[in-house]
Amino acid sequence: MLLEEIHCPADVKKLSLRELTVLAGEIREEIVHTVARHGGHLASNLGAVELTLALHYVFDCPEDKLVFDVGHQAYAHKMLTGRLEAMRESLREEGGVSGFPRALESDCDAFTAGHASTAISAALGMARTRDVMGDDYHVVAVVGDGALTGGMCYEALNDAGQSGTRLIVVINDNEMSISHNVGALSNYLTGLRQSRTYRAFKRGVRRALERIPGLGAPMFRAVEKFRDWLKTPFVDGKFFDALGFRYIGPLDGHDLKALIRILRRAKEENEPQILHVVTVKGKGYTPAESHPDAWHGVAPFLVETGEMRGEKHVSCGRVAAAELNALAENDIRVCAVTAAMPSGTGMEDFGRAHPERFFDVGIAEEHAVTMAAGMAASGMKPYVAVYSTFLQRAFDQIATDVCIGALPVTFLIDRAGLVGADGVTHQGVFDLSYLSMLPNMVVAAPRDVRDLKRLIRLSAEYDGPMAIRYPKDGEDLGPRLGTHRPLRVGEWELLTGGEDVMFLAVGRMVQTAMNASIELMQKGVRAGVVDARFVKPLDEAALREALATPLWVTVEENVAAGGLGERVLAWIGENAPGHEAIVLAVPDRFIEHASVESQLAQCGLDAHGLARSVLARLGR
Amino acid sequence: MLLEEIHCPADVKKLSLRELTVLAGEIREEIVHTVARHGGHLASNLGAVELTLALHYVFDCPEDKLVFDVGHQAYAHKMLTGRLEAMRESLREEGGVSGFPRALESDCDAFTAGHASTAISAALGMARTRDVMGDDYHVVAVVGDGALTGGMCYEALNDAGQSGTRLIVVINDNEMSISHNVGALSNYLTGLRQSRTYRAFKRGVRRALERIPGLGAPMFRAVEKFRDWLKTPFVDGKFFDALGFRYIGPLDGHDLKALIRILRRAKEENEPQILHVVTVKGKGYTPAESHPDAWHGVAPFLVETGEMRGEKHVSCGRVAAAELNALAENDIRVCAVTAAMPSGTGMEDFGRAHPERFFDVGIAEEHAVTMAAGMAASGMKPYVAVYSTFLQRAFDQIATDVCIGALPVTFLIDRAGLVGADGVTHQGVFDLSYLSMLPNMVVAAPRDVRDLKRLIRLSAEYDGPMAIRYPKDGEDLGPRLGTHRPLRVGEWELLTGGEDVMFLAVGRMVQTAMNASIELMQKGVRAGVVDARFVKPLDEAALREALATPLWVTVEENVAAGGLGERVLAWIGENAPGHEAIVLAVPDRFIEHASVESQLAQCGLDAHGLARSVLARLGR
Repeated sequence: MLLEEIHCPADVKKLSLRELTVLAGEIREEIVHTVARHGGHLASNLGAVELTLALHYVFDCPEDKLVFDVGHQAYAHKMLTGRLEAMRESLREEGGVSGFPRALESDCDAFTAGHASTAISAALGMARTRDVMGDDYHVVAVVGDGALTGGMCYEALNDAGQSGTRLIVVINDNEMSISHNVGALSNYLTGLRQSRTYRAFKRGVRRALERIPGLGAPMFRAVEKFRDWLKTPFVDGKFFDALGFRYIGPLDGHDLKALIRILRRAKEENEPQILHVVTVKGKGYTPAESHPDAWHGVAPFLVETGEMRGEKHVSCGRVAAAELNALAENDIRVCAVTAAMPSGTGMEDFGRAHPERFFDVGIAEEHAVTMAAGMAASGMKPYVAVYSTFLQRAFDQIATDVCIGALPVTFLIDRAGLVGADGVTHQGVFDLSYLSMLPNMVVAAPRDVRDLKRLIRLSAEYDGPMAIRYPKDGEDLGPRLGTHRPLRVGEWELLTGGEDVMFLAVGRMVQTAMNASIELMQKGVRAGVVDARFVKPLDEAALREALATPLWVTVEENVAAGGLGERVLAWIGENAPGHEAIVLAVPDRFIEHASVESQLAQCGLDAHGLARSVLARLGR
Repeated sequence: MLLEEIHCPADVKKLSLRELTVLAGEIREEIVHTVARHGGHLASNLGAVELTLALHYVFDCPEDKLVFDVGHQAYAHKMLTGRLEAMRESLREEGGVSGFPRALESDCDAFTAGHASTAISAALGMARTRDVMGDDYHVVAVVGDGALTGGMCYEALNDAGQSGTRLIVVINDNEMSISHNVGALSNYLTGLRQSRTYRAFKRGVRRALERIPGLGAPMFRAVEKFRDWLKTPFVDGKFFDALGFRYIGPLDGHDLKALIRILRRAKEENEPQILHVVTVKGKGYTPAESHPDAWHGVAPFLVETGEMRGEKHVSCGRVAAAELNALAENDIRVCAVTAAMPSGTGMEDFGRAHPERFFDVGIAEEHAVTMAAGMAASGMKPYVAVYSTFLQRAFDQIATDVCIGALPVTFLIDRAGLVGADGVTHQGVFDLSYLSMLPNMVVAAPRDVRDLKRLIRLSAEYDGPMAIRYPKDGEDLGPRLGTHRPLRVGEWELLTGGEDVMFLAVGRMVQTAMNASIELMQKGVRAGVVDARFVKPLDEAALREALATPLWVTVEENVAAGGLGERVLAWIGENAPGHEAIVLAVPDRFIEHASVESQLAQCGLDAHGLARSVLARLGR
């Protein structure tokens, strides 16, 4: 196997074109089997194999800097940079290889990534370092067409284009981001792809020319050479021209020879260039090629059939969408906004039921939030469904455009808390804090899907900004837990009483606290549980009642700073000085990829960890 | 005076073109005198007078929605919508008219604004509401060319262009944002402005044609009519075409007649349109026209001479820039990045000394931060100088691109704390919280400019992310206060001891606490002061020592949630349960425009407020 002999990028350069082609096939095979075993990002990685090979063939990592945007396309790169065995064994597993580029993992990963649209900015930073330091290396950013909908890309292109510095931006255009791509620019790229010259090229200009008697191959080579010499874009890239970039493309992203030739030429230039490379998402694995959306990020699966393994969970997002559908039936003001995550957030279900009130704005969280604010300001009742980690992008818009005007925008925040295999860049552990610091914002987290439905029903009645955050998978804790009358804003719920200790837990930590209370009971500690479902406002009446219990333990899947626990401490400081409380929360470090269960245990946020903390405080 | 007879936009429609021209002059006069009295945004507002008149002449507010981006150009709009008297009396004063569009102030202010680049998003939200609700009103976003460098604009254009919905975006192109505009798109706009047809138009095609015997005016009208009929852009707006917009322009933004004609026609269309309007910043007031940058946002001044009134303060930004200059002399890695605020942040001083290491990226905070992260990842030592309120835009980039990799990016955060007349949208009162919740981040605030210098020197040695936040104006508390050896990360400083109460104060609150301690001494309360200059990490040794004092009072110019006080409470909870502390901070509401002194007093953060809180707690 060729791939096993590649230990560093230099080894790639020793191969012939024929060997590179064989290698591409091996990498595909490897990617499919690795993702089948560990789960991960499949379709986008399969599309980028030849591109990655060509990049390593032409450029010299780690001297030259390759910056992969997000990193949904970096698996081949990882395999070619000494991480093949590690990928096979431990991709996305605890202590193993990350699913995203990580500078800590390899000096060939020039930049740690995970959120979309950052690569051009980071690459420009590196190019400027090079210029200031008088170095001479190359910097290449590889950006998916989906990431191009993010405003940061445009800010970076605008800056880089003006700077005139040497920088290559490869647009890996696979005609979709995670879901189908949206936005006018996507149409524009499609226009470029469908331009006559490109189609002609794809259909085989060479064959056509060769068939003309007396012309043939030499003529074709001449034509090609002439075009090469001109370095002419096949078609008109005026959009990128306006941003100060030389546009080259579109290029067939699976034609190794052409890619190598064009990259070599790009390497000679001393200006900002865009290479528009067209690839097929899922290339080489039929199920993924046919349904690239479903095969973007996947759980482990059976290679032969494409059947997903693992248990099925209840998706909180789909529960939310179903509830929203019901609301929308009776209220024309209800609409949903998402940022390139219609499937991940479950909102595609809403989109099917109410297409005219469903808005997928692309990877553009900032715009999503302010657009929703505009809707709310003009009489709609928008729900913005975004992953917790990506909503960080819109912190300022939530503060300035939603909260100042106290506009009724509801945030449905998916993937909140610890997220498992996606690791450091994807943890949703800041939202309780950055949202509850904002005036006028109500911040809630349901303990289970039953509670999630009630919170959404509550939001329909509430005329102001509200955030509801929940993890990917939900459970139904059953009808016997707690009361089931409609919720009120800021209302907590005493689930079980306890004389020694009172857990004030939020979100799925409520169930964990219930389990901990059972464990504690066996040690003779009587612990009660309050579902503190509103992190803001606090339920002051519930707090006053809970003062009867001498020790409080707040539990949240969020950092301590600015979270539930500190809010409770502040309340104590003002209202019940001296009352004792322990704050259990995600510690002040970035939590690496592992299973959610393991991450929770690492943070002391499993039932046993909760019990242990309580026993330690009680000196037992 | 015509202006005094305009009580609502409908009154504008009654005027003849001649009267409108007179009115434009009156508005200019009024803007100059109002800003001279109260301070405010001058140059941009002077540039937008005819545009605003034309908008109100053609559209019907409040039915039609006018969304002004930022609002540096909304003064004429405010004067025409019933707020003339209030502007004269109370612009930016406590209880008076806001310097920015505020939905609360008038139903003609469709959207509350203050941060750049949001108008197109908000306007698209309104257009979509209209479409869903089956209404028929018009939505017009007015965006400065500077705001166009912000990625949100692009996200919104991309979404709006694809949606195909009826929406008018007016680009008010005055060839600069706050400072000189940057970025390739700015060059592109310049290209459009300088295109032959536009120049010809400006130079008076009419006169030229009229001079041709037998042709003259009728021919010109025919030409003009033909162009009107075609609705042809004068030149090629391919960039906007790619985004799905019909581009119309450039238009002379001071030609009322032409503006009205084009706006009327745009009103008829049923698609997304961009009107590129060229205006002269500062138009009509010579000092502002000559130096529009200096006349962007100004303090009160003398109309006759243009001389600024009011006392001179020490600019913290300029102090920071001077210190950075000194560092950069001996360290080639030191560079500075700002986002369209070279003057406001003082960094223009650095730019003059080290132009090759100074990067103004435009209104693009997200890009600024990740670009700096790329620089840091490749060996530079970047300083990102941004206002506190605008840095909110880059929260995710700080978290994901800087903190995860623990990259040595230093944030110089200007306009932190309460900012005075700019009001709700510009308060810098969240930064201590949103920064200290991030792992790997060091968060500091100097008590005076002397301390600011020491913090910057410290940052030079520190190899990780650090934030230094300070207000606009600084003081030098003098060499006798505290020690002056080099600082260490996380080190606090006991300034004066006290047996009854210990203030733990940060930033300019240190001096306030000193003053409060004097006031308290007169009441027999012995209060000491610790300069808690690092909000993260806390100085645990200092905290342990301070336990000797029975009551702590934390004081910070930041919200309580997630700030210094709550961090201290959390420390107490873990290390000294039961120790008493009061948290004094900015309350959980948006603080309206007023003087900084008044805002501090409102928040109980003046010396008297501090003393009062302490006395109340002590029951005196």
